[in-house]
Order: sequence, then structure tokens, then C-alpha cells
Amino acid sequence: KTASMLQDFHPADIVEVYEELNLEEAQFVFILLEPMRAADVIVELEEDDRERLLENVPGDILARKFIDRMDSDDAADIIAELPDDVKADVLSNIADREHAGDIADLLNYDEDTAGGLMAKELITVNENWTVATCLREMRGQAQDIDEIYFVYVIDNDGILKGTLSLKKLLLTKSDQVADVYDKDVISVSVDASAEEVANIMNKYDLVALPVIDGIGRLKGRITIDDVVDVIREEAERDYQMASGISSDVEASDNVWQLLRARLPWLMIGMIGGVFGAKVIELYEGQLSLYPEMAFFIPLIAAMGGNVGIQSSAIIVQGLASNSLGIESNFKKLMKELGVAMLNGLSLAAILLLYNFIDSDSLALTVTVSSALLVVIIFASVFGTFVPLGLNKLKIDPALATGPFITTVNDIMGLLLYFLIGHVFYGFWG
Amino acid sequence: KTASMLQDFHPADIVEVYEELNLEEAQFVFILLEPMRAADVIVELEEDDRERLLENVPGDILARKFIDRMDSDDAADIIAELPDDVKADVLSNIADREHAGDIADLLNYDEDTAGGLMAKELITVNENWTVATCLREMRGQAQDIDEIYFVYVIDNDGILKGTLSLKKLLLTKSDQVADVYDKDVISVSVDASAEEVANIMNKYDLVALPVIDGIGRLKGRITIDDVVDVIREEAERDYQMASGISSDVEASDNVWQLLRARLPWLMIGMIGGVFGAKVIELYEGQLSLYPEMAFFIPLIAAMGGNVGIQSSAIIVQGLASNSLGIESNFKKLMKELGVAMLNGLSLAAILLLYNFIDSDSLALTVTVSSALLVVIIFASVFGTFVPLGLNKLKIDPALATGPFITTVNDIMGLLLYFLIGHVFYGFWG
Ligand SMILES: [Mg+2]
Ligand SMILES: [Mg+2]
Ligand SMILES: [Mg+2]
Ligand SMILES: [Mg+2]
Ligand SMILES: [Mg+2]
Ligand SMILES: [Mg+2]
Ligand SMILES: [Mg+2]
Ligand SMILES: [Mg+2]
Ligand SMILES: [Mg+2]
Ligand SMILES: [Mg+2]
Ligand SMILES: [Mg+2]
Ligand SMILES: [Mg+2]
Ligand SMILES: [Mg+2]
Repeated sequence: KTASMLQDFHPADIVEVYEELNLEEAQFVFILLEPMRAADVIVELEEDDRERLLENVPGDILARKFIDRMDSDDAADIIAELPDDVKADVLSNIADREHAGDIADLLNYDEDTAGGLMAKELITVNENWTVATCLREMRGQAQDIDEIYFVYVIDNDGILKGTLSLKKLLLTKSDQVADVYDKDVISVSVDASAEEVANIMNKYDLVALPVIDGIGRLKGRITIDDVVDVIREEAERDYQMASGISSDVEASDNVWQLLRARLPWLMIGMIGGVFGAKVIELYEGQLSLYPEMAFFIPLIAAMGGNVGIQSSAIIVQGLASNSLGIESNFKKLMKELGVAMLNGLSLAAILLLYNFIDSDSLALTVTVSSALLVVIIFASVFGTFVPLGLNKLKIDPALATGPFITTVNDIMGLLLYFLIGHVFYGFWG
Repeated sequence: KTASMLQDFHPADIVEVYEELNLEEAQFVFILLEPMRAADVIVELEEDDRERLLENVPGDILARKFIDRMDSDDAADIIAELPDDVKADVLSNIADREHAGDIADLLNYDEDTAGGLMAKELITVNENWTVATCLREMRGQAQDIDEIYFVYVIDNDGILKGTLSLKKLLLTKSDQVADVYDKDVISVSVDASAEEVANIMNKYDLVALPVIDGIGRLKGRITIDDVVDVIREEAERDYQMASGISSDVEASDNVWQLLRARLPWLMIGMIGGVFGAKVIELYEGQLSLYPEMAFFIPLIAAMGGNVGIQSSAIIVQGLASNSLGIESNFKKLMKELGVAMLNGLSLAAILLLYNFIDSDSLALTVTVSSALLVVIIFASVFGTFVPLGLNKLKIDPALATGPFITTVNDIMGLLLYFLIGHVFYGFWG
């Protein structure tokens, strides 16, 4: 009874139920599913859940029952996760040898590239065919494919020439493919990055994107559903980095997964705090003479962090969405300095007025406002240039957000604060 | 010459050039474009750029030259931005009265709902038709529509019954639509939120999603390209909130736009810093007796902030992707407390060891580690429950990330630190 009930659910819904089950229950449910649906469920599961579930399934069963029923992109992704011996076993047991060949091809590409995102299931027609041949061939090819969004037109060498929209095919009166197809086709190279693929599909509002090799031969196509996953994962990763969470976790993960993702960043923050303590210790003498300097330690540290996070976030987002514009780095620096000056001057002025009224110490009043201005400018420039620099070095610029930037700015802020205090208390103290 | 060159570019590419032009240049380029391409460019422009460009274009020109050529969803979005008098003028000047009616319908929906995302351009067939009638009718309807992803099947009352895939239509041997169409159709109500729409389309890997009213009548369809924009904008907004940036800015915006987005959050941070100063002032007596307590002020403040950001980020992301799971709030609290205890105990133990070696003051050593543990627990619970609470109150939970959470945790951290210090220095001081 459970079995027949399960067959009515969409695989994505079954996956949601799955995530609430323990391994035994999950295996039990899994056995009840008919193979086609089970294959879809395997594809939709998260990597760690899938690993647990498939651990004891032998390679030949995996191949014949499930991999054979999957699209080539999903099959390749799943095989890539397997241990090397199982991998070979699975590949040799796929009944459809053409499918096996497609999957083996896809295994060569890095998962963060267009090649890693593409599938081999394509409907292609030759530019020299008639519309009638074309329809007949399409009927044959369409059996293997879930949905037809585009038909690709190639020449005799397999070079991508254009696309044939089903709409045009429905409406045309011509009998030559060459008269009907659209020659303005946007494509991407197999080695383009996943981020580039996402930006192109988003910019041109594409549902499918053909992938070509170095000489223009059509190699596969990327569909928007897989790119939506890339976009979401990228955004989540950047958000987590900015929040000091290191590996990919969710609220529903267990205590150990959450701890492993969080403790390393907190450790960095704590080491930063110990350095901060050393900086203040350096100025212990000054602090015991003028204990009121301690009052504004948190303000200076917090503002350095806040400004640094803002600056780095703007750069990281600009890099991610490829929207930094054509401004030179020099112009960017000038603009960031302008914003920092205006932010710093307004806030320093307000704080000056406040302390002028509230505090008896002119030295403190002047020190706090000057330090605030200097810290804001430092944090802005630092927060702008570190992510730009990391990006130049091909390191993820998102590393320079969150705990890293706040920790560095905390320490720098304290140093600047006490240095400036030293000067002004020399005058007025 | 510029004109004919421009016609070869994709509208999305023209928009990228646009963003680097001043208003006069932009208007000049715009006049050179043929109307269909100009309409596409208007649709692709960012809201503020579009406003500048269209400011002086009279309503009837707008209607006849551009709105008439746009899809109903884009047309409605653009008309919604216009001043009320221009709006009426535009609507009454659209030549195609059916198109005008569609747009007027769409103007009734809130932009953050399925109704606000959908377009009226649909290909529909009746479930009682034959396949031949169906193909003939589709040819007629398809003239108005860029791409056909799905054909929707309705009954005589306009109730959505299913979808007809072009693939099945290509392959079928039956001559009745009723035998061919797929009755398992996923749809969404006009008043579903944009976030729900995004989660559904992502979960089921959909390219188009039909929208129905309260009694199941087909009202329109949402396409994935518009939902990708929703997903990106949502993710950007959450990221910006967590980074203390209030309005939607980019690195390429000018100094004033950047300042307006950043200064308010910094102001909040500064006010928090002033409260922090007041807290320390309260304990000035204690601090002048034990100046070494000042050393660890930044560490305690920073750790409260770091932990609070982690906790709130996990909740905000879980809410956004609808992946919090079915755990009760009580279980969530218990888990978060578990993580906090483990984080807090490990870090406090390391710091205890460090200070035991480095510092002469047992009181300081015990105070700092105890305060760290308590602050981590407080910040975890606070960071978990504030976003959950805001969400219950239908306020954006992302408000409880970034500067807000760090500021509150800074102040609370200082209070707890000095309270605990007061106790332990009473014993050993
Ligand atoms: Mg892949
Ligand atoms: Mg787009
Ligand atoms: Mg668009
Ligand atoms: Mg796929
Ligand atoms: Mg990134
Ligand atoms: Mg997981
Ligand atoms: Mg709309
Ligand atoms: Mg998906
Ligand atoms: Mg998928
Ligand atoms: Mg649209
Ligand atoms: Mg949100
Ligand atoms: Mg803008
Ligand atoms: Mg801080």
C-alpha cells in the first residue's frame, strides 16, 4: 500500500520525506519505488544522503537499475562521486553503450565548468536536410529526451550553426531547414566557468545553452534547472562565507556538522581577539592614566568591522554578478575613498558633538573622532582591495568577507586608536 | 553607421553599453534603435535608468512605439512605475485592445506575488479538441509568442486540466487531445508569494509554471527567466542586509547612492558603540582597579558578534530556501544550545589555558573564559530566535543579521563581561 502511494508522488516530494527518515527506513522506502522513480530520487538527493543510501549497492545493480535510466549529466555527476573501483564496475555494466560513452566523455570535465554542467541528450538536425527529414529524425531522437526546448542545427563536421525553434517549425511554409533556422545562436565553450554560464543564461534569458569545443563542434547542452542550482549554491556559499560558516550546512543538519562548520571561524576570531588584547596591553600605561579611553574601544572596533564588511560585500557581489562595470581600479579606489570620507566625516562630526557635550576630556573627544575617521578610511580601502586582490590571484574573493575582515579591522582599529590617543593626550592630557 | 551596427547586438548587450553612457548619449543611441529592439532594451534596463530615459517621452508614443511590442508582464511592470496620469494615457493608447486588457489585468496584482510575475501570453487548447484542431489553433496563437514551452489544456470553463508537451504532440498516433495530454500539472495560485514560486520552480525543475485563480481557472504563466531574476535579487538582498547595506546598490553606482545605502547602518552601529561606552563607564571604578580587564573587551565583543551572525545566517538561509525541516522550535533551540555549548566550551578552555600561562591574574583568567562561554550561549540563542520571531511577525528575518545582531551582542557581551568580572574579582581580586 505504501508502495503504490509513493508512486503517485513527484520524486522531489519523495526526497523531502526521505530527509526525515533514518537510513533503514530510507532503504525500505527506496526498495518499494519502481526503478525509473528511484533513479529520479537518487538524482535529487543531496550528495551525503545519496552516499549513505548507495554505499552497499553493487556496481552492476547501480548501472542496470538506475544509471541506465538517468540523463547523462546526472549519471556522470553520480558516478564521479563513487570510489574508483565501483566507478569502473558501473561504467562497464551500463547496457546502452552509447549512453555509457556519453557518460565517460562527461567524466573528463571539471564539475565547475560548462562541460561539467552539460548533458549529451541533444536533438540535432543537419543544415542540409529538408523540413520533412528533419521532422522524421526529430521523432526518432525525441524518444530519449524529456523535453525539447531547442533543436540544434549542425553542419557535416558537427559544427554548431544555429537553432531551430519548434514554433518556426510549426509555422514555416518552406521545405528546407536552411531557410528556417536561426543563425544567431549564443553558445559557450566547454571550459567556461559555471559562473560564466550562469551569467550568460541570466543575461540573455536562456532556457538551454549549447556547449561547443575549441573548433566550434556541438558537444552538449546546459539546461536552466541545473544553472538555477548553481546560482543558488553560489549565493549560499558567498552568504555563508560572509557569515563565518565554512562548509555547506543547513539548519536541519546535526550538531556535529554545524560545529564543524562554525568552530574554525570562531577560532580565527578568537586568535584575533588575543592579538587585540596584546595591542591594548602595549598601551596599558596610557590606559591606566586615562581609563576613559577604554570606553570607546568597542565603538572603534565595531565601526572598523562594519565598514570593512560593507566595502568587501559590494566588491564580492559585483564580481559574482559580473557587474563591476568598466571603471578602472584607480577610479574604484577614488570612489571608495570619497564614500569613506563622507561616511567618516559625518559620523566623526556627530561623535565629536556628542563627546563635546558628554565628556570632560578634550583629548578623548578629539582622539575618538579622529580615530573613527581614520579607521573608516582604512577599513574601506582594505575591504575594497583585499577581495579585488584575491580575485586577481584566482582565490575566492568571498574569503575576504565576514570574520576575516572584521578581525583584521578590529586589530588595526585598536592600534590606530591608541596611536592617535598617544598623540592627542600628549597635547592635552 | 552606428545605427546599423547597433541592430546586430542583442538587447542585453546594448543595455551593458547603455550603463556606461550619460543621459544625452543614451537618448541618442536609443533614437537610433528600431522600435522592436528599443522595446527590448527598455525592458532590460534597470528601473532607475529606465525612469531617466523615459521621463520626457509622452504617453501615446510610449504606448504605440514600445508597450505594444512588449510581453504583457514586462509591459505591466513598466507601466506600474509610471506616474498615474501617464499610466492612464499609455493604457488608452495601446493599439491592440486585447493586449491593453491583459496589461490592465496584470496591474491589479502585487509585484511580489505569482500574479505580479506572470504573463498573459499563453497557448491554450480545449480538452475536447482533436489533435488536428489543436495544431491549427496553436499555429494561430503562436504568432504572438516568442517561445512555446508548454501548451496548456483547459476545459470549457477555463479550468486548467493539464499540459500538452510538444514532444508528445510530435510522437502521438491518437487524434484526441484528451488521450495525449498530461494531467499531472503543477500550478500555483495568483496570490502565492514570489519566494514560493521560486522554490516550486526550483524544486520541480520547471521552465514555466501556470498560474490559476481561486477556482482553478488558468490566469497566466510564469517563465523561469523572470524567476531567476527573483532568486538573484532575493539572494542579493539577504547578502546586503547581512553586510549592512540598506538599499539595492552596486559597485558601479555613484558616491551618493553608495553613501545613502551605507550611512544609516553605520549610524546604528555608532549608536550601539555609544551605548557600549556607557556600559564600560558604569564599571569605570572596577576598570581603574583592574585595567587588564580592558584587554579582552574587543575579544568578548567580537565573539558575541561572530556567533550571533552565524546563528542568524543559518536561520535566514533556511527560511529563504524553505529547508528548515520539520523540527519543532524546541528541538531547534536544543540543537543550537548544544552547538553553542560545544563551541563555547572548546574556545573557553583554550583561552583559559592561554591566560593561565600568559596572565598573572587568576580573576582575569576565569572571568574572560566564563564570559566567553556565556556570551557565546547568549549570542547563539538570540541569533536563532530573533529571525524566527521576525518571520512569525511577517517581518523580513534578514533584518536580524549583520549590524543589528553584532551591535546588540556587543552591548550584551560587555554587560555580561563586567558583571562576571565583578563576581570573580570579588573572590580573587
Ligand atoms: Mg556534471
Ligand atoms: Mg535575465
Ligand atoms: Mg528578462
Ligand atoms: Mg540536467
Ligand atoms: Mg563566489
Ligand atoms: Mg546536508
Ligand atoms: Mg509583473
Ligand atoms: Mg532544481
Ligand atoms: Mg535537478
Ligand atoms: Mg517575462
Ligand atoms: Mg529574504
Ligand atoms: Mg542601480
Ligand atoms: Mg565586531
